[in-house]
Amino acid sequence: MAVQLVNYERNMISQAVFFTFSFLFFFSRAVAKDFCVADYSAPESPAGYSCKKVANVTVDDFVHSGLGVAGNTSNLIKFAITPAFVDSFPGVNGLGLSVARADIAPGGVVQLHTHPGASEILLVAQGTITAGFISNANNAYIKTIKQGDVIVFPQGLLHFAVNVGRSQVVAFASFNSANPGVQILDNSLFGSNFPSELISATTFLDVVVVKKLKGVFNGTG
Amino acid sequence: MAVQLVNYERNMISQAVFFTFSFLFFFSRAVAKDFCVADYSAPESPAGYSCKKVANVTVDDFVHSGLGVAGNTSNLIKFAITPAFVDSFPGVNGLGLSVARADIAPGGVVQLHTHPGASEILLVAQGTITAGFISNANNAYIKTIKQGDVIVFPQGLLHFAVNVGRSQVVAFASFNSANPGVQILDNSLFGSNFPSELISATTFLDVVVVKKLKGVFNGTG
Amino acid sequence: MAVQLVNYERNMISQAVFFTFSFLFFFSRAVAKDFCVADYSAPESPAGYSCKKVANVTVDDFVHSGLGVAGNTSNLIKFAITPAFVDSFPGVNGLGLSVARADIAPGGVVQLHTHPGASEILLVAQGTITAGFISNANNAYIKTIKQGDVIVFPQGLLHFAVNVGRSQVVAFASFNSANPGVQILDNSLFGSNFPSELISATTFLDVVVVKKLKGVFNGTG
Amino acid sequence: MAVQLVNYERNMISQAVFFTFSFLFFFSRAVAKDFCVADYSAPESPAGYSCKKVANVTVDDFVHSGLGVAGNTSNLIKFAITPAFVDSFPGVNGLGLSVARADIAPGGVVQLHTHPGASEILLVAQGTITAGFISNANNAYIKTIKQGDVIVFPQGLLHFAVNVGRSQVVAFASFNSANPGVQILDNSLFGSNFPSELISATTFLDVVVVKKLKGVFNGTG
Amino acid sequence: MAVQLVNYERNMISQAVFFTFSFLFFFSRAVAKDFCVADYSAPESPAGYSCKKVANVTVDDFVHSGLGVAGNTSNLIKFAITPAFVDSFPGVNGLGLSVARADIAPGGVVQLHTHPGASEILLVAQGTITAGFISNANNAYIKTIKQGDVIVFPQGLLHFAVNVGRSQVVAFASFNSANPGVQILDNSLFGSNFPSELISATTFLDVVVVKKLKGVFNGTG
Amino acid sequence: MAVQLVNYERNMISQAVFFTFSFLFFFSRAVAKDFCVADYSAPESPAGYSCKKVANVTVDDFVHSGLGVAGNTSNLIKFAITPAFVDSFPGVNGLGLSVARADIAPGGVVQLHTHPGASEILLVAQGTITAGFISNANNAYIKTIKQGDVIVFPQGLLHFAVNVGRSQVVAFASFNSANPGVQILDNSLFGSNFPSELISATTFLDVVVVKKLKGVFNGTG
Repeated sequence: MAVQLVNYERNMISQAVFFTFSFLFFFSRAVAKDFCVADYSAPESPAGYSCKKVANVTVDDFVHSGLGVAGNTSNLIKFAITPAFVDSFPGVNGLGLSVARADIAPGGVVQLHTHPGASEILLVAQGTITAGFISNANNAYIKTIKQGDVIVFPQGLLHFAVNVGRSQVVAFASFNSANPGVQILDNSLFGSNFPSELISATTFLDVVVVKKLKGVFNGTG
Repeated sequence: MAVQLVNYERNMISQAVFFTFSFLFFFSRAVAKDFCVADYSAPESPAGYSCKKVANVTVDDFVHSGLGVAGNTSNLIKFAITPAFVDSFPGVNGLGLSVARADIAPGGVVQLHTHPGASEILLVAQGTITAGFISNANNAYIKTIKQGDVIVFPQGLLHFAVNVGRSQVVAFASFNSANPGVQILDNSLFGSNFPSELISATTFLDVVVVKKLKGVFNGTG
Repeated sequence: MAVQLVNYERNMISQAVFFTFSFLFFFSRAVAKDFCVADYSAPESPAGYSCKKVANVTVDDFVHSGLGVAGNTSNLIKFAITPAFVDSFPGVNGLGLSVARADIAPGGVVQLHTHPGASEILLVAQGTITAGFISNANNAYIKTIKQGDVIVFPQGLLHFAVNVGRSQVVAFASFNSANPGVQILDNSLFGSNFPSELISATTFLDVVVVKKLKGVFNGTG
Repeated sequence: MAVQLVNYERNMISQAVFFTFSFLFFFSRAVAKDFCVADYSAPESPAGYSCKKVANVTVDDFVHSGLGVAGNTSNLIKFAITPAFVDSFPGVNGLGLSVARADIAPGGVVQLHTHPGASEILLVAQGTITAGFISNANNAYIKTIKQGDVIVFPQGLLHFAVNVGRSQVVAFASFNSANPGVQILDNSLFGSNFPSELISATTFLDVVVVKKLKGVFNGTG
Repeated sequence: MAVQLVNYERNMISQAVFFTFSFLFFFSRAVAKDFCVADYSAPESPAGYSCKKVANVTVDDFVHSGLGVAGNTSNLIKFAITPAFVDSFPGVNGLGLSVARADIAPGGVVQLHTHPGASEILLVAQGTITAGFISNANNAYIKTIKQGDVIVFPQGLLHFAVNVGRSQVVAFASFNSANPGVQILDNSLFGSNFPSELISATTFLDVVVVKKLKGVFNGTG
Repeated sequence: MAVQLVNYERNMISQAVFFTFSFLFFFSRAVAKDFCVADYSAPESPAGYSCKKVANVTVDDFVHSGLGVAGNTSNLIKFAITPAFVDSFPGVNGLGLSVARADIAPGGVVQLHTHPGASEILLVAQGTITAGFISNANNAYIKTIKQGDVIVFPQGLLHFAVNVGRSQVVAFASFNSANPGVQILDNSLFGSNFPSELISATTFLDVVVVKKLKGVFNGTG
């Protein structure tokens, strides 16, 4: 390939002022959408929050500092989740991803749940868990994994994790949605206003069992 | 797999209050986007209407009651369509699907048309139709189908249906868009402001034919 | 707008042969992808089945005749589903939609379940049901709806229906995926190889309850 | 921001061999999908053709040379289209865009048509056209535009162009699909196997008119 | 296929008024989203600008007239770009495509850059360029192409063009985004507030080189 | 809401066998696409690898164990990346997400690079980094962040990280693509076959500088 190129460098300094102006001018109108930082006060669309004006965006919109501290696992399930979803991390708005930190004390449990809007990769940063998901074909894919292992939970499928070791588990979950959502089975059934008799009819759980668990999860109906 | 699990149940009652508070707190900020019910008064984006505040959403936003009554087929084409698209069914906003009811009297016709924004499955709930579509390769895929049969019309392709039986046809159309749109060939050509001479030039229809049909479809130009 | 148009019609007949050849030639190479009928014998990608050669496609690929007959509801839940998903309806491959017929005898139940890959609109063609879904915020949106009503279940959320009338219910479900998938809660928990102790630990259901239901649903583990 | 940086440059030469090996090794497994050049001999999925092995890809796969020559406009409509779609331009496979060249002699016509799978921008490189599209609301948006002007036709809507000047028109169309498809109204109706009586019934065109045009466009049925 | 069709035409005139009213009524609520012309004064979402009311839309929203005039190439790089992106072409909002005109004087250069949000097809309308892109596998795909040739640059990859002929180059770029964005390497490094020492550390360019180029491109830091 | 529900439980045992058979039968054909584990030996489409048969899928396809061990940072840039992308993690095929581990020794550098196919969230698990990205508007968003902080890099934008602390940095990157790709600036320019004179012409770097760095990065041309 015979390419004839002029020596640009010798002309650089003298023409620089003109160049920078003319060149940036043409592109300056099209630069807005490499990101759309959430403006929580403006209308929300199916695609996410409205965009903050670029002039008001700072690096802090793209940084989230909530995952440095262990969540409080002094609760019934010995589990705490600390999300960095779009509601607390405006920079991910419209970008289609988010993360969360999970702390699980020994014997603790991440209850069976789904994310209707995202697949998840769970990375074990510390400790040992038994984790898995149930497929549409009703096969349970379950494995005990340790520090440095990751497991993927396909979108919308029921999944769980249990700390089966003797030490605290720290894990990081990443999602391919800025707002993955979560539907925790127990809370959906027993922490909602879903009438007990309908729950019983549609799950084959005895009404007595349902009502007892509603007492635990503060459900009504 | 050796899993050691503590007996959670014995501790349930006493810790329940604490648990429910701590657990729901972490997730409560991320629950908004399992749906985005249309707020017709706020700005509309390419992704659909703005979202109504969740606190104002009721089950009625997710239910549409317009398809229980037959449309009035006392017209030229003996056909009526009753849509449940996003404009009358706010719960489908952002979810990417909608439905409609079609009534076709004997001899009635669903004129040739396209949906620029969706594929369609047409289900014959009652009666017999001849239906079909034209492919990009100019092949007409046409079949006479009866109650319980379905036919799929790929996105954007010209398609039609004709009641070829002796009884009223009831059919249900489902679309993979909350707002499939429709471009009825006759209305596009003869019911619009598309100038007759341009129609003639771009379709090979004689201007006299065009003007006559414009009279029928109230077109101008 | 002053447009000068020649009279094309007078030249039509004489030039037709040449025209048709030249014009179709240019487009003939680009006509394949208005549809991609499933070739079940070729590799499957994340986007669906491989495409059958267009020359082998017939109108029958776009028609499905399975929904004309009531499913057999002589079972425990008095419910039957007859799907027209991509596995039995090759024409919807790649088009992103499908339908199914649901039959529910009086007192019958569509158990709590999710579709991980699609939203659903359920249309009551006959009878009366109580139907609803649970949101991420643990709110149950439930309503009793009758013939001609539709209800939308957002993607991935737990939902159900119960025949609360005295007559057989016929309903049609439409999905915005050619392969919506389904995760029936009871089957996921009690009809799979999900170990009973893990179920108990991650759902707060007593192991005795779990094992009893596993007996019903043929689960193992 | 006080950042302490070591002087990397002094260590460059000595460590270069090791570096290049170790660094490229880690990423070398993930480099395939910046493009997926079409392998026309392998299965086609709804997402496009299978990918040619990267080792066999050359720059010629990304270059198309067909648009440099005027198409032959010596035909009935004085129009020729020269596409650079995925079928003749393997490098655009999976990338979601393509282009075409349009030549229109004075008085020539781009007949009314749709692209079911893409929006289009038409750029007038030479000459003057009257072009437009019909919206779902049956409004015709039409304008006479000249060299250097562009007009956008939204996906799936009927559109057209007519050379209203005295000189040859050269225009370039760009599409947001590697395979936009085309449905030319005349060819769909009169150049296909669509039965004349069904055409008449679903378009309100007289059967005599239909049959006459079928003679022109070589239609059957 | 035996289809019995009534003769519609004889009833046309008398029933036309009634027909047009009833038929359009049903569809009139679903016509909005064949396009979403940008309303620059309303909120912007990740999917683009809010939609202007259809009643205020005119054909001029779908036409852009900026590409008819050569850009001013009297600058350092002898290059000018004239975009028709969503910011100056409201009709492409939400449609996912846009175009631009490039003028390159002899010896001129389109500097190395990426479009983070779109693939590009570059069409040489006049002249000769050497153009290419670098793949993830660090292979440079480069070719000298002339009038009528096109080259595709996959999304997000570094690419460039150089006028290697003796005459002015005119080229047209098309993108599969209404807002492709651009990241010009020189401007990103040397025309921004990116600190020189961090540039040096992360690119292996000597700080002296960096600072010299910052002088040319008006960078700070 | 008055719901009349029968007591299902009493009938469970006797009907269980029939139920399980009839119910699973209907759904069994539609279970395939909750996941599509990569079959590396079959054709690859733009949507990813072909799917392994479900019968051959095991839990190990969904688990990746490569991130538990520190990468070797004994190299020029004191950096190592250990990816869990689709090429080594078949379970993420088609799901649209992946992760990687980054090790950075004190003074180490993650060179300026882009991911053409994904946005990224980088989570600092240990240590302190200065990280940032350059926007389309040529603004550098840079911050020094520590353990537990995350930063998001929007798709396709140049970004970097530098270990500015005294201890080893461990960070985890998550991407919203199974195959994010990477374009490292230095390798693209100086480790490829991109001719030095073209690099110089399109970047304003002196040819001498380019050739020197080509020596470091093993580039040719």
